[in-house]
Amino acid sequence: MKVIDVKDIYEQIDELMEKEVMVQGWIRNHRKQKEFGFIDFNDGTSFQTIQIVYDNKVKNFDEIQKIRVGSSIEVKGKVVQSPAKGQAFEIQLKSLKLLGDSPEDYPIQPKRHTREFLRELAYLRPRTNLFGAVFRVRSVTAMAIHEYFQSHNYVYVHTPLITTADCEGSDQMFKITTLDMNHLPKCEDGTVDMSKDLFGKLAFVTGTGQLHGEAFALAYKKIYTFGPTFRTENSNTKTHANEFWMIEPEIAFCDLEGLMDIEEEMLKYVVNYVLEKCPNEINFFDSFVEKGLKEKLTKLVKSKFTRISHHDVVDILNKSGNKWEFTPTYEDDIAKEHEKYITEYFNGPVFITNWPKDIKAWYMKTNEDGKTVAAVDLEVPGAGELMGGSQREEDYDKLIARMKEMNVDESTVDWFCNLRKYGGCYHSGFGMGFERLLIYLTGVENIRDVIPFPRTPGNCDY
Amino acid sequence: MKVIDVKDIYEQIDELMEKEVMVQGWIRNHRKQKEFGFIDFNDGTSFQTIQIVYDNKVKNFDEIQKIRVGSSIEVKGKVVQSPAKGQAFEIQLKSLKLLGDSPEDYPIQPKRHTREFLRELAYLRPRTNLFGAVFRVRSVTAMAIHEYFQSHNYVYVHTPLITTADCEGSDQMFKITTLDMNHLPKCEDGTVDMSKDLFGKLAFVTGTGQLHGEAFALAYKKIYTFGPTFRTENSNTKTHANEFWMIEPEIAFCDLEGLMDIEEEMLKYVVNYVLEKCPNEINFFDSFVEKGLKEKLTKLVKSKFTRISHHDVVDILNKSGNKWEFTPTYEDDIAKEHEKYITEYFNGPVFITNWPKDIKAWYMKTNEDGKTVAAVDLEVPGAGELMGGSQREEDYDKLIARMKEMNVDESTVDWFCNLRKYGGCYHSGFGMGFERLLIYLTGVENIRDVIPFPRTPGNCDY
Repeated sequence: MKVIDVKDIYEQIDELMEKEVMVQGWIRNHRKQKEFGFIDFNDGTSFQTIQIVYDNKVKNFDEIQKIRVGSSIEVKGKVVQSPAKGQAFEIQLKSLKLLGDSPEDYPIQPKRHTREFLRELAYLRPRTNLFGAVFRVRSVTAMAIHEYFQSHNYVYVHTPLITTADCEGSDQMFKITTLDMNHLPKCEDGTVDMSKDLFGKLAFVTGTGQLHGEAFALAYKKIYTFGPTFRTENSNTKTHANEFWMIEPEIAFCDLEGLMDIEEEMLKYVVNYVLEKCPNEINFFDSFVEKGLKEKLTKLVKSKFTRISHHDVVDILNKSGNKWEFTPTYEDDIAKEHEKYITEYFNGPVFITNWPKDIKAWYMKTNEDGKTVAAVDLEVPGAGELMGGSQREEDYDKLIARMKEMNVDESTVDWFCNLRKYGGCYHSGFGMGFERLLIYLTGVENIRDVIPFPRTPGNCDY
Repeated sequence: MKVIDVKDIYEQIDELMEKEVMVQGWIRNHRKQKEFGFIDFNDGTSFQTIQIVYDNKVKNFDEIQKIRVGSSIEVKGKVVQSPAKGQAFEIQLKSLKLLGDSPEDYPIQPKRHTREFLRELAYLRPRTNLFGAVFRVRSVTAMAIHEYFQSHNYVYVHTPLITTADCEGSDQMFKITTLDMNHLPKCEDGTVDMSKDLFGKLAFVTGTGQLHGEAFALAYKKIYTFGPTFRTENSNTKTHANEFWMIEPEIAFCDLEGLMDIEEEMLKYVVNYVLEKCPNEINFFDSFVEKGLKEKLTKLVKSKFTRISHHDVVDILNKSGNKWEFTPTYEDDIAKEHEKYITEYFNGPVFITNWPKDIKAWYMKTNEDGKTVAAVDLEVPGAGELMGGSQREEDYDKLIARMKEMNVDESTVDWFCNLRKYGGCYHSGFGMGFERLLIYLTGVENIRDVIPFPRTPGNCDY
């Protein structure tokens, strides 16, 4: 007899009714009565459990009654209509095999655990309703992203993580080495002789694939990256982790308006995909994590995103009559309090464009005013900045001049600059932190709770 | 007028015939005659180019004739049937806009370049036929893998790359640090004080997600990882790189036979997907890279993979009458020459099972004979080992005993061992090197030529 996934039972329930099935999975809860027993059974393929019912006519009734929560079992039984409320069917147990025991002190008991407690049990927490749902949504969202880009003729590029270019500022990157740190080879001047290391020089793990992505966009027109990213920031906040995943699309022959079209279409596609594929998970989050989540997401899919310049945002903020902790100016970044106000003001997602150039990156295209760059941040209600992108400076001379102004070392990225010489064209790209998207989709607010095994300062267990 | 992708033109050619279109892309070749000109146009969305034809009635005829190979252009024109051989249609140019010039010495000229030459131009090589095809196949293959697993109810898990567990042997892992290597803090005994580092201890970037994958498999039943992996090996061979991508599925309630079923089904799915989605690329490889590639792949999809024990493989090798450089024994690994012989002997892919335990990893399940483990390697004709997997030791006591025998430090992986206590079950998993699969699919034999920006000892440019 072939084992069937719980997910498939739910999807094929009409055909399976009154049929015998075999399932393998784990006991979430076990309620025992004198002549009956009820097992909440979950095999991980679905958010939903199945109730397995047995009575004392079953072989090994006494042994079955002793099986504890968390144990893995194999069950054969008949799918029948359920007399119980809230479930369409249940499985009448014919035989049960205990595959793996679970002790009395198994930490994941059928009761409410705090997220902080479960965070300390990163290897067991996907067995709970909350984290089971979060990491399934993570998987489904990743697939949504791949499907969106692949169906729009993008090429998925694996940009390298190891790099020797320190254009991001090496203080924000982890150094990697194969040298024995207790016995480092030294140069005559006393510094470490990095020529002895595997790559013959100091190398890092990177925080972006954008530069390499641009090279491929100028061959394939449309590319995206989707991979892990590292940052050394020593911040213990709800939104910082030292390892996270990023999506970085890059599109040739695309200006800032075109980029916003893509960002908006992509986000709606992904949100819609998750709403369709994970209705149980979304309902659960809506009930227990963020009231109104489902409405928020449904609304987003139908809304038209606002597009407004940084300049005009500052005007709105200053005219608001609010007393701000940070005074909005045309020259400065906007603060969290401003982001919040502006998404509430427009009652939906807002693209803020044309930022003051001095607070933005060196590779962004300078606008004709000479003061702003063709950059865009997408602010969404409740989650702040979700994507950041820009049109790239495609003029070789302007790019080099800007790099000099901002003290960017050209020598390690000369190839990147050369892209402007060899059939260069106007092009744009954006980055989206995958975890920030998941925080928005699930309502779970701490980045540690949407990463399977989070790495934060002082925390690298498991 | 909306820009259309070349890929979409090929797919919608019947509707587009005699219609006007706008395209943006690059000039692959430009042949000029006195009163005519022919541009081989490619926009990166398709392997195929489109011929753009113009005559001296077009505005700016003289300027257009000066445009060099590699330049980016925007073209409006009419799709018409082509009188030329080997192409069903061409575009009659109405207007052309030069977007980005390319110099006379542009390195990617329409002639044959060696792969070694192009390897030095990693940022330009995707613009060639060969590498354009390789990296598109890389993208499509990645999607095939996601589609296979997602459609079979697997959860995609992002296992962490940063780890403090050194169970693989820390000498094979890159150390990462935020400390200033020229001014390392020291302990009293003169060793580096790693408690001052970001995670408070020595950390690495990892070579496997398997241990974390197992934790998630025991929650979701079926999971897979797909991400970058690092190895410090100082080998300059065609098959070694220091950074590459791996797929590591892990399946609960799955034994070695079940694992082979999955490996076989998955590989056939992926190969078939690539044959269907990349016919032009496969034909190109078949003609110019590996004669017979297409037949090899088509045959694989239809074949039944052989399953044979390591013991019986050794018998076949010893009875072959061949003179081996390495004498096959029941206790040793098999060599490349043996792999080759055995796939030729069976004329197709071969699963070799039940390997001598002392040459395999500590977490593999020991068979009843006490000498072998329930491991399986998949050998494919022409590419050697493509996947390696095993049933995992699910018995806590046996696992701990084996770890002691093999000097594996239990302290950093106690959580992994505990998975055997909390509803553990028989489970299996395998790893597949993504680049090895690509080498098999494309016929390109050097790993440096299937990774966008390869990292090998002494080479970390771009």
